[in-house]
Amino acid sequence: VARIVTAGTEDSFACDWLQGLCDSVGARLAGSPGYEAAVAYAVRTATEAGFDRVWTEPFDGPCWVRGAEHARVLAPVEFELPILGIGMTVGTPAEGIEAEVLAVTDFAELEQRAAEAEGRIVLFNPPWGGYGESVQYRTKGAVEAARHGAVAVLVRSVTNHSLATLHTGMMSYADDVAQIPAACVTVEDAGRLQRLSKAGATIRVRMLMDHETPPACTQANVIAELRGRERPDEIVLIGGHLDSWDVGTGAHDDGAGCAITLAAAQLLAKLELRPRRTVRVVLFACEELGGHGGQAYASAHADEVSNHVAALESDSGSFAPRGFTVRSSDAVIARLGELAAPLSSIGAEAVSAGWAGVDIHPIVELGVPGIGHRTHHDAYFHYHHSPADTFDKIDPEDLARNVAAVAALTWLIAEDETSLRDLATEVETE
Amino acid sequence: VARIVTAGTEDSFACDWLQGLCDSVGARLAGSPGYEAAVAYAVRTATEAGFDRVWTEPFDGPCWVRGAEHARVLAPVEFELPILGIGMTVGTPAEGIEAEVLAVTDFAELEQRAAEAEGRIVLFNPPWGGYGESVQYRTKGAVEAARHGAVAVLVRSVTNHSLATLHTGMMSYADDVAQIPAACVTVEDAGRLQRLSKAGATIRVRMLMDHETPPACTQANVIAELRGRERPDEIVLIGGHLDSWDVGTGAHDDGAGCAITLAAAQLLAKLELRPRRTVRVVLFACEELGGHGGQAYASAHADEVSNHVAALESDSGSFAPRGFTVRSSDAVIARLGELAAPLSSIGAEAVSAGWAGVDIHPIVELGVPGIGHRTHHDAYFHYHHSPADTFDKIDPEDLARNVAAVAALTWLIAEDETSLRDLATEVETE
Repeated sequence: VARIVTAGTEDSFACDWLQGLCDSVGARLAGSPGYEAAVAYAVRTATEAGFDRVWTEPFDGPCWVRGAEHARVLAPVEFELPILGIGMTVGTPAEGIEAEVLAVTDFAELEQRAAEAEGRIVLFNPPWGGYGESVQYRTKGAVEAARHGAVAVLVRSVTNHSLATLHTGMMSYADDVAQIPAACVTVEDAGRLQRLSKAGATIRVRMLMDHETPPACTQANVIAELRGRERPDEIVLIGGHLDSWDVGTGAHDDGAGCAITLAAAQLLAKLELRPRRTVRVVLFACEELGGHGGQAYASAHADEVSNHVAALESDSGSFAPRGFTVRSSDAVIARLGELAAPLSSIGAEAVSAGWAGVDIHPIVELGVPGIGHRTHHDAYFHYHHSPADTFDKIDPEDLARNVAAVAALTWLIAEDETSLRDLATEVETE
Repeated sequence: VARIVTAGTEDSFACDWLQGLCDSVGARLAGSPGYEAAVAYAVRTATEAGFDRVWTEPFDGPCWVRGAEHARVLAPVEFELPILGIGMTVGTPAEGIEAEVLAVTDFAELEQRAAEAEGRIVLFNPPWGGYGESVQYRTKGAVEAARHGAVAVLVRSVTNHSLATLHTGMMSYADDVAQIPAACVTVEDAGRLQRLSKAGATIRVRMLMDHETPPACTQANVIAELRGRERPDEIVLIGGHLDSWDVGTGAHDDGAGCAITLAAAQLLAKLELRPRRTVRVVLFACEELGGHGGQAYASAHADEVSNHVAALESDSGSFAPRGFTVRSSDAVIARLGELAAPLSSIGAEAVSAGWAGVDIHPIVELGVPGIGHRTHHDAYFHYHHSPADTFDKIDPEDLARNVAAVAALTWLIAEDETSLRDLATEVETE
């Protein structure tokens, strides 16, 4: 383990790989040409990295195409209003939408002022309350506003630090209410509009969004495997998601997770450490549009899910290593705590119960011990789903330490006489 | 002084005034309708605030109109390249410019690679080296690149912290070289393009900018005066600049300086503290496009420049108070150090030799003691000249403390038996 950690912290594979992905491929929204380029890049680089087998697994998944977007405040003072359509939003009619704005802080205020929402553009300007709290306005805002007759929604970007930065992400519609267009605005503009509203101004906005939600697109998970020396049918799956949003270059989300897990397995191969069990790196497709790559993997591998000893996902950025959160039985958590103890040298020894990951969730639900790779991601939401999630935000030393942590734990799980799967008799639910 | 400081830190005039300026008026580029709205707002609010006299002084100054801007990287991978034309740049031909990019770090690298610049778009990606160092690429980049035959320049935004934020600012051309279009790009994109270039890629960019530099526009300084009770002809001038860039709402630069100085004088009036000398608040026009409001003031008041006892400018944002830098004789600096000593209660007592301000510079050059109001502006360049310079970045308590500091020092200078002007026998030059 010490050898892996030392070699990992000195290895530049992840950094080089991630730079190539972010700079030369760039944004890679599910179903886009960018995603196809990412698949080609991953297949080529994994093949060159000496994996025993590299392949893709195509499936039909959702896709969404951002078109032109434009908004302008017309009153009480005219100014351009940069917007970023929320993933899967419908567009506006071709002539756009022009309406008065109802600015509210949160769902509670919308309920109180529901009578004012008819025909309006509802602006949600919730203060940051942590991602889980704040993201609801992005995911559910359109449905809640449409229930009261709103014609569109604008949502404060989901972030705790803004320099006039737009953050997108996913949303959904409900079957029983009209589908209305939804876009994020900057923290700055959301605040300005709500202050103007509180000061008594009538705000009018014109917005135009030309988005398309085509029928399902073919997309592919990318898989690279290092065969186990003794129990090749037993699989330790590690991975991240290869798709990103269409703004920025998905450096932390989740180019880093792909780089870390691919580099971790590559490191074992380079060190000629062929573990007892097979290490399978899966770079999942279509996470951002609903975790469809993970579902496709679970379906395609239904026959061998029971052979998966563990699944580790890295999807919380590449900041300083912290450790792992585990979705499995107490016995699995305890065993992982023992295995990870030597990682204290790089600060990655913390193991606790918690969320494992969107992509591995379908197989974790089927009993596979799920492990989420965790870093000190205080700055994560500064960049998340925005044009600022770029390679310059990656610290090469943190990245290498994350590779070391994941490589070491992967080795230990794949080598361990005890199968984590056998310890996972009782799956905890959150 | 204690009474002024206490009342200042409790006064909300500056905060309310600045919110109105930023939110209801917004961007106010020299010569634009926004600037005219700012003048109307300043005249109305100053009149309501109980100044003895409020007036405007129109002059013909330069102006510049931003049109459509668009750029796209065509190779080695296609992506949108957000750009923000640098103030006073020429536009591109109507069909745009498409060219290969020469990415350099600095002027030294441009000189080394001068033979490669012909027909290229030169990208400058200097690391942050402090504003004075980094801003040269924005101000002089077009001239230096054009000397070697470049057709346009792209410049890394001048900031030390970026979340994909574009920063504009001023530039100039030289008579002996072609005028080529100049735009800023984000720190993120500048880094990506230079990394791609270093990795061996040929980068092609298409850019279109439709800017106009009309003949001179009429614009106006706004002046509000509190007449002195004993020596009304002796003037203590305080002020900031009312114009801003056309992105963001000029909250720190320099709405804050206008709010602080206007509020400081208003506070004296509210407290019925009519000082010995006249306090004149000047909200200068057209600072960003070259300091023309300050020049117009100096010309219009040439006859009474010798009556100006001191001139204080606030144009470094409204962060925690720090003190004052002075451009005058040692005797003036020493006297101001004595006067400011009681401001240690709010951290504003530091007085040292230094820059005073662009707007007051013309009269400071004529012998008026110049005083620059200073705050702890570590974050200033995060916002400076960008869409992120907005009212939410203002801390109301810091703003009130700055009002207290400026009000107290203004009172002390205007009341002092000793005239600072008489102490200014020897003007230091930087």
